[in-house]
Amino acid sequence: MNPIYLDNIAGTKPDTRVVEAVMPYLTDKYGNPAAHFYPLGRESYSALNQARKQVADLIGAEKAESIIFTSNGTESNNIAIKGIMAASSYKKHIIISEIEHYSIQNPVLKLTNYGYTFTKLPVDKNGRISPESVANAIKEDTALVAVAHANSEIGVIQDIEAIGKLCKEKGVHFHVDAVASCGFIDIDVKKMNASTLTIAAQNFYGIRGAAALYVAPEVKLVPLFDGGFQEKGIRCGSENIPAIVGLGKACEIAKNEMAEYTVKLTKLRNKLIDGLTKHYDFLHITGDRENRLPYHVSFWVEYIEGESLLMWYAQKGVYCASGSACSSNILAEDEEDLQASHVLTAVGVPTDICAGSITMSLSKYIEEEDIDHVLKVSPEIIDKLCAMSPAFDSSKIKK
Amino acid sequence: MNPIYLDNIAGTKPDTRVVEAVMPYLTDKYGNPAAHFYPLGRESYSALNQARKQVADLIGAEKAESIIFTSNGTESNNIAIKGIMAASSYKKHIIISEIEHYSIQNPVLKLTNYGYTFTKLPVDKNGRISPESVANAIKEDTALVAVAHANSEIGVIQDIEAIGKLCKEKGVHFHVDAVASCGFIDIDVKKMNASTLTIAAQNFYGIRGAAALYVAPEVKLVPLFDGGFQEKGIRCGSENIPAIVGLGKACEIAKNEMAEYTVKLTKLRNKLIDGLTKHYDFLHITGDRENRLPYHVSFWVEYIEGESLLMWYAQKGVYCASGSACSSNILAEDEEDLQASHVLTAVGVPTDICAGSITMSLSKYIEEEDIDHVLKVSPEIIDKLCAMSPAFDSSKIKK
Repeated sequence: MNPIYLDNIAGTKPDTRVVEAVMPYLTDKYGNPAAHFYPLGRESYSALNQARKQVADLIGAEKAESIIFTSNGTESNNIAIKGIMAASSYKKHIIISEIEHYSIQNPVLKLTNYGYTFTKLPVDKNGRISPESVANAIKEDTALVAVAHANSEIGVIQDIEAIGKLCKEKGVHFHVDAVASCGFIDIDVKKMNASTLTIAAQNFYGIRGAAALYVAPEVKLVPLFDGGFQEKGIRCGSENIPAIVGLGKACEIAKNEMAEYTVKLTKLRNKLIDGLTKHYDFLHITGDRENRLPYHVSFWVEYIEGESLLMWYAQKGVYCASGSACSSNILAEDEEDLQASHVLTAVGVPTDICAGSITMSLSKYIEEEDIDHVLKVSPEIIDKLCAMSPAFDSSKIKK
Repeated sequence: MNPIYLDNIAGTKPDTRVVEAVMPYLTDKYGNPAAHFYPLGRESYSALNQARKQVADLIGAEKAESIIFTSNGTESNNIAIKGIMAASSYKKHIIISEIEHYSIQNPVLKLTNYGYTFTKLPVDKNGRISPESVANAIKEDTALVAVAHANSEIGVIQDIEAIGKLCKEKGVHFHVDAVASCGFIDIDVKKMNASTLTIAAQNFYGIRGAAALYVAPEVKLVPLFDGGFQEKGIRCGSENIPAIVGLGKACEIAKNEMAEYTVKLTKLRNKLIDGLTKHYDFLHITGDRENRLPYHVSFWVEYIEGESLLMWYAQKGVYCASGSACSSNILAEDEEDLQASHVLTAVGVPTDICAGSITMSLSKYIEEEDIDHVLKVSPEIIDKLCAMSPAFDSSKIKK
């Protein structure tokens, strides 16, 4: 049996149609899009603009010019947060939640070195942020609220429209990290009242190297890079045309086919969750069950270390991840490997377990027999590892 | 006849071996290099490290860990300049030359908003910086000298080893922008005493989307992006594995074949320069004739606007550029199009001509018959455009 890849949150297999669209730009169409005097340059310029339209179409942006291309989600998030705050004259306060990705949390922490302050909103035990808590946290000098549409570690989806509405009423910028949700849930920057919004190609069947930042027409940003005049000066430097073409194609495919493949994903996700929880009341799903990414399953098991689970699953041909793709997957030589995940701590997972939750993120290529295999090997792995734990009581298994 | 592409300074056609090396990472090898629990992740990790070694080998870096991958040359230059200055406790002065690329010049200008100061060194009429002028400009609070190895607009190569030696003696960081030179001239970060050095894949037959920053072991940098732990925290965010593999392969090819193709390039470059200057004493080559990139020809013509030359060359199937790839190629709707190039102004080209110099940058794929074609059509174009100029005196043509 082929390995079953369930780490799509860390990067999906590119769609073959994306690779086909990208290929000409790796071989014959290598022109600089700023070179408008000859066809090779104009072709790249057209490709760039077509991709901009495809991205805008997927996320409901009125104008293609509102789309800025970057290299990855981390860059888009950094440009949004640092750029908006640098352009804010006297308002120096930022609001985030306690389960934001490192690329939101760490830029905000960095800004505290320069006189900025922030509030971290709590989440409930399912990882949800209450829109009221956002409203209560907004102060006179609040410039920005930044909340992820969905969380990559525990799959929970937030009530972004309600939060966006509040931000608009209070005249505060609203940044949405939609890296985990784009291509799987409807995104409409207007309904969300998003000032800025991040998406990344590699998370929905594009190729690595391209991401986008939506910037609403009224939003002013100080760029992170200074140099030439590309991307309206907000993100200068040579554009990565092949990957941008891939991002555009991935958006087009998502727009046309998302409704269909998310039905399949939701069904398989539910089957996996139901199958995993059936026998073990000490196996805990993290994140909201209802408001949940259609491809996302995450859990932790009492008595068992996440690393052991990961290794045994890999041994059985099931490739999954521990916590966030950007932290706990880190090579064991890094001390970060041993740190508890701030996301899991926030939803009440015991600290000694927080380094050991499992995320299984499905892709549209997954079939029912793959899920059946995961459900077949899971009890074998869990029973074996439980038996090795001195604290385990075997009567807890519901068989 | 096929079009002749002479805008390689804005991006080269990728080597087919680079594209072959990249392909598996666009299709089947899509793993996250931080995912060390399963083979797909470990493969990406190995690929990343192999590319790091290939880059280190080309530029004489002792340790592969000194190589940080970024998305393009502008990003590498920004990380180096802003990162070094942010990490510098009390030294707030920077030295650059007056012909640095926008991605060096503009970050330095930005820093002046935050209390930093700078000195711009003059160049001689051939675009050369005198190492003595660097020594004289270094002050008590100078933290950084930033000079490009070679200039993309006028092709001049600087005496980087002499400048680096002075910087080392005075205990000042030295950043080298080697985007235009890498893959064409020997680079040795140790001989150069470089603290940091930038190269970009698209300038020497790699694919767009990957660049590198060499960071000497003793150099401390404050990162531009905050987020996860990738690239030792200096450049976090998901790595663009396909493009990084391509950069590694491009470095390997350059190391093995550079000596050979630069002989051919130098011969064709000289033929082109000699042929262009033969008939017209009002056609002026810009930049040093001796210390010159082997693939680089740049000139301006009295009486003739650069834009007219570009259009006519394109008409005759010769694709070249006006000035820097990042500025004067910009679409005509941008007002920057009309600005004089700071590089040309620095080497004494009249301001009204500065928007109109021509750069013909050759690639290793160019053949002698291509150069013959350029030399055949050049007098046709120049004679025609001169005839249209009211100020032109036809007796000036040496026929």
